[in-house]
Amino acid sequence: MKAVVRRGKSLLQAEVDDVTPASGQVLVKTLACGICGSDLHAVHHLDTMIEMGRRSGSRSAIDLAYDLVMGHEFCAEILDHGPDTQKTLKAGTRVVSVPYAVGPKGPEVIGYSTRFPGGFAERMALTEAMLLEVPNGLPSEHAAMVEPMAVGAHAVACADLSERPPALVLGCGPVGLAVIAALKRKNVGPIIAADYSAKRRAIAERMGADIVVDPATSSPHAHWTAFDVPATLAELRAARMTRSDIRSALVFECVGVPGMLQAIIEQAPPLSQIVVVGVCMEEDRIFPVIAINKQLRVRFVLGYTPDEFAATLRDIAEGIVDVAPLYSGTVGLSGVAAAFERLASPESSVKIIVDPRRT
Amino acid sequence: MKAVVRRGKSLLQAEVDDVTPASGQVLVKTLACGICGSDLHAVHHLDTMIEMGRRSGSRSAIDLAYDLVMGHEFCAEILDHGPDTQKTLKAGTRVVSVPYAVGPKGPEVIGYSTRFPGGFAERMALTEAMLLEVPNGLPSEHAAMVEPMAVGAHAVACADLSERPPALVLGCGPVGLAVIAALKRKNVGPIIAADYSAKRRAIAERMGADIVVDPATSSPHAHWTAFDVPATLAELRAARMTRSDIRSALVFECVGVPGMLQAIIEQAPPLSQIVVVGVCMEEDRIFPVIAINKQLRVRFVLGYTPDEFAATLRDIAEGIVDVAPLYSGTVGLSGVAAAFERLASPESSVKIIVDPRRT
Repeated sequence: MKAVVRRGKSLLQAEVDDVTPASGQVLVKTLACGICGSDLHAVHHLDTMIEMGRRSGSRSAIDLAYDLVMGHEFCAEILDHGPDTQKTLKAGTRVVSVPYAVGPKGPEVIGYSTRFPGGFAERMALTEAMLLEVPNGLPSEHAAMVEPMAVGAHAVACADLSERPPALVLGCGPVGLAVIAALKRKNVGPIIAADYSAKRRAIAERMGADIVVDPATSSPHAHWTAFDVPATLAELRAARMTRSDIRSALVFECVGVPGMLQAIIEQAPPLSQIVVVGVCMEEDRIFPVIAINKQLRVRFVLGYTPDEFAATLRDIAEGIVDVAPLYSGTVGLSGVAAAFERLASPESSVKIIVDPRRT
Repeated sequence: MKAVVRRGKSLLQAEVDDVTPASGQVLVKTLACGICGSDLHAVHHLDTMIEMGRRSGSRSAIDLAYDLVMGHEFCAEILDHGPDTQKTLKAGTRVVSVPYAVGPKGPEVIGYSTRFPGGFAERMALTEAMLLEVPNGLPSEHAAMVEPMAVGAHAVACADLSERPPALVLGCGPVGLAVIAALKRKNVGPIIAADYSAKRRAIAERMGADIVVDPATSSPHAHWTAFDVPATLAELRAARMTRSDIRSALVFECVGVPGMLQAIIEQAPPLSQIVVVGVCMEEDRIFPVIAINKQLRVRFVLGYTPDEFAATLRDIAEGIVDVAPLYSGTVGLSGVAAAFERLASPESSVKIIVDPRRT
């Protein structure tokens, strides 16, 4: 079958072995598959990703000796059922799924496994038990965005929202925009969103941001006092002398480059919750004493639960969450390498969808 | 009055101006005052502490041009009442107090303010509204340990104990031992305690640790699987294939040196809660991606609330928490400098108390 493969540190179109559904799996035809920021990173730094996984106590399902077919944000159509399947969803049904398959040593991520090619190929083998039918005639390009939107839903679900904190989202790429949508969905606000790109700030507003900030011209942390959050330790101590109902801030790190975490530690209000959603693959430096002085809470999050994924699909299909503002167009397999280049420049595109049926 | 002062980077005995209680303050005679790890640090690195405070958004109450009288873990006796006081507690009453006084620009820490000398002096001015009478004839040396024990109570109160996680305490200095006591007080366990010092491991057991580990000979993280906690991402993923009730770990960082946090990020089980109680004053390095892969929660904590302080006093006075194992003897003002030296070597002492009435 036709696919785009990562070979060495390049992306190229290639003919790869077709997939055969194993026990409990279905064969599907890929209809749409989003390009993720981690895919961009993996082209050049896959060895680092594998090494960091190993240091996290994970077994990689990637054999660097082989081509890798990426793509874990997919919508597909059932073609055939493998052995030991229930066949509840018939051939022709459009489906989405958490991108997990069971390999010989446990779960593997479809698109980050040399055993399970992802959605940058014509066909995939998916786990039948994890399939969700795409409802309400939701376009396949939008259904493919359930996966990144679920990342935002999970990040927000991991935050303590009991105090209804005002929220700041740093970085308005797909992850930051998904966080904004999830905050809006839960009526958390006001939502402040910061990005250097005017285009992304405009999309952040469409997704629900109440205030957008260009960090090049003003500090994203300039608004806390207006929302009754003591912005510095000195302000907090002064406030505590007269009040017991101190409000704290909620900050989402959705950039994932070295220096971001320390910038937040240094600039965020005391007692802030920081949810780290952006994946910084490199070594980073922090001053723990500043986080201690401010009694910060830092929550590192990843992925989503199957329930969060299913709820996100419902929200999108029912029009509660609108993913249209993130959509930056569709390319065929021949356009994937150029799309990866385009996504490296944040001003031009947010979420590009691959449709392997196109040339 | 007689005091021990920090002058330059030395500790020396000196005659300092006597204190006069201002509005709302009482004059007290110091009976006992513990030496804290941060005092040891401040002798050599006070400028760094002030700079880190400034970067945390705090105003320092320390003027480096003047001598500093440290000591914030004190038990004292009321001598006289200043203007605008209620006089509910009479002269002669023994008291403890959170070490805060109100300066012209807000709260200041007694013992870390050049306006409010601490307990390494014969007399102090304390805030009347914050005084707590020492009950049950509790010895003054033990009452002085309410402050460090409250630090442990606060750290445990900041953890999410809803899953009754097994707990690991890294470092069995006064802070780690206070955490162990607070965990025991809340029936959290089993408690694993790690320290290179055999003496401190023995004290950890007296405070309530169920298992003690010498990190020089075995990993403090070797016990998780025995307590039903998946110890690695691979184990977690395998467990999730058959179970939904995944138990997570609770780790207290009570050492406060660079490298500790990353060692925990790398060695702790996925989904761990990490409570950072040890104060690392230097820049530290972490790999955020490993914390993300494991979805770790990191909570930086400091100090205690007045309620936690008062509850700790009650626990100690009622014999629910026994501080006797931490007590390493009492010195007069002339012995303070040598005591600071002794505390730099963890094998010899844990908590040395200063009694300024002694020579």
